Amino acid sequence: MTLPAGYRYSSIYAGIRKVAKDDLALIVSDAPASAAAVFTRNRVVAAPVTLARANLRASQSRVRALLVNAGNANCATRTGDRVAKECVSAVARELMIRDSEVLPASTGVIGVEMDAARVIERVPQLVKGLDPGRFDDAASAILTTDTTGKTAFASAKGCRIAGMTKGSGMIHPRMATTLGFVMTDATLTPAALRAMLHRGIDRTYNRISVDGDTSTNDMVAVLANGASGVKPALKEFEEALAEVLESLATQIVRDGEGAHKLVTIEVEGAASDLAAEKIARAIANSPLVKTAIAGSDPNWGRILSSAGTAGVAFDARRVDIDLQGVAVCRDGVAAEFTESELKDKLDLPECVIQFTIRGRGRGKAKFWTCDFTEDYIRINASYRT
Amino acid sequence: MTLPAGYRYSSIYAGIRKVAKDDLALIVSDAPASAAAVFTRNRVVAAPVTLARANLRASQSRVRALLVNAGNANCATRTGDRVAKECVSAVARELMIRDSEVLPASTGVIGVEMDAARVIERVPQLVKGLDPGRFDDAASAILTTDTTGKTAFASAKGCRIAGMTKGSGMIHPRMATTLGFVMTDATLTPAALRAMLHRGIDRTYNRISVDGDTSTNDMVAVLANGASGVKPALKEFEEALAEVLESLATQIVRDGEGAHKLVTIEVEGAASDLAAEKIARAIANSPLVKTAIAGSDPNWGRILSSAGTAGVAFDARRVDIDLQGVAVCRDGVAAEFTESELKDKLDLPECVIQFTIRGRGRGKAKFWTCDFTEDYIRINASYRT
Repeated sequence: MTLPAGYRYSSIYAGIRKVAKDDLALIVSDAPASAAAVFTRNRVVAAPVTLARANLRASQSRVRALLVNAGNANCATRTGDRVAKECVSAVARELMIRDSEVLPASTGVIGVEMDAARVIERVPQLVKGLDPGRFDDAASAILTTDTTGKTAFASAKGCRIAGMTKGSGMIHPRMATTLGFVMTDATLTPAALRAMLHRGIDRTYNRISVDGDTSTNDMVAVLANGASGVKPALKEFEEALAEVLESLATQIVRDGEGAHKLVTIEVEGAASDLAAEKIARAIANSPLVKTAIAGSDPNWGRILSSAGTAGVAFDARRVDIDLQGVAVCRDGVAAEFTESELKDKLDLPECVIQFTIRGRGRGKAKFWTCDFTEDYIRINASYRT
Repeated sequence: MTLPAGYRYSSIYAGIRKVAKDDLALIVSDAPASAAAVFTRNRVVAAPVTLARANLRASQSRVRALLVNAGNANCATRTGDRVAKECVSAVARELMIRDSEVLPASTGVIGVEMDAARVIERVPQLVKGLDPGRFDDAASAILTTDTTGKTAFASAKGCRIAGMTKGSGMIHPRMATTLGFVMTDATLTPAALRAMLHRGIDRTYNRISVDGDTSTNDMVAVLANGASGVKPALKEFEEALAEVLESLATQIVRDGEGAHKLVTIEVEGAASDLAAEKIARAIANSPLVKTAIAGSDPNWGRILSSAGTAGVAFDARRVDIDLQGVAVCRDGVAAEFTESELKDKLDLPECVIQFTIRGRGRGKAKFWTCDFTEDYIRINASYRT
């Protein structure tokens, strides 16, 4: 894939995380780019989130750089605001741009003071390392417990889109630590970009049970610098952007901590799309469903029971459930299936759960989650040590 | 402890569960007892729940017997309603009482047809086995993945209370499979009993993160047969009942699947008791908090962050957090503590998390949960096999 024009990337090890692996990334657009971002809805908000939000406003959504560190969330600390500001200023000084043109983001442990000096000292070298080809280096530097880098690319008639994301796959929604950055060389207004980002996020990042919307640091930002000279048809561009966002979001789930399987939940026949989403979310968030999938156990009763907790009215006697395309429940009771055959299919790395309410409802939703294995516990019980 | 007068208990193996361990329990009051019960709020409701609710109404809350089976939830099956009715009828016939005087309850796997004949055949022997001293046998027969029986006793001036419960400790609220049965020989009206049960449940069973209120089969019932001849002071009796309910509820958490630690969460200084409960619940339901406790990791940032997702407004800069009585967070940032000492304290089988918002708020709440270990996954990934 060709990268979007007019962007340069860099990364460096600044000693923020213990392991000597790059932990500081810089993304620079050669020209001011239209920018849009979505932020965490947690009541406890990290300093870089507050500053990024303020800078986006102050710059009137015209941004030049993204500065991202892994290894420290810069949240719930005495010096958080000052640290975020000093790091941003150092980058702005070196790039000779305004502070407000830099959006900061952090991910890592909460409640540990972050040493601004470590970042500031490395900024000259970080800027010196900027290169149009170092996209993957930057994508790698923002990772934490991720086991693989997560990138996605698309193009829409003459303009290109490239995205990177990190997601440690923390199983519970509202507790993920997700960052996502998408660059395009299309010419777009901030307002158009914002509308497309919000619609796209609602159907992708907000539809994974590694739900990014409420950790203390979550943020997904899109930059459009117009370097291609192409003003794309909005509908076509929005589809390409959604494709990138869906790819990034599902990569997070696939790399969920300890996850061995990507689980796609498809709900149909609910009273509304919102009702379908609630049912899908309830199934996706059930540890009992997720552990059953981990054990390749076609325990559809847990799927039905979790759907019953969604706060949505439906007639259980009209529910059909399919696992891997195999009918396991019809009219709310067991269907006939060969358990050994289905178990083999459930051993595959991808699992599809279809939950259909037969009747007049037209509401549907897609949702992604992962299975829930012993490795998840192993990773999280000793996160700080 | 002396058991309440006027009750007899029995249990038998009816072949409902695979392992040859008693799976059918019967509790009989010699005289009609005032009864009150709370039931699951899941949209998907097991047949015995529907029948128990109807019988409670039909008997005008005057009940003679509780019939409980483990190993099959009798939920989401073709024959569920008929099976529940036939089992209840068999018991009523043998005891020469009305069907409506029997409350049924089931727990176990969902979606597998239950064979009524297995129960019906054993009813004569089950009734023959009734004995005032077989309380523990009955308490043992209702268990599923529990590793220990769960009983609690109290007395209030001349009358006695005895309770039994089961709880497989499924970590997520709304997905527990909890049953609880409390017998007393006090003289009480159904209305008084109902009011006390509801208040008690709200502060006990509904305050554990093995929250019983929305699985397909959950039920807690209280019988008061008046055999002691004592009409207790309501306030005193209610306290004794609450004590039994709290003991039973925390025993469920303590025996949570794979749990090694009982975690008590105390929130103070919220705007209201309800706000405090929401914060406590959010902390209790966070897998990240629970895995940290499993690893004896004083990761208070996860506690603060999970509180931030509770949907309750609070100023993070006014939050103090104590773990095992050790200050780990003051004014929303790290306090000084000796990590090795605290780690030793976190290795204990009980853990207390205190979350205090300093200010004018008077809202407080207590909540119980357990740590989240690899054993949980091991148990649940192969539940049906």
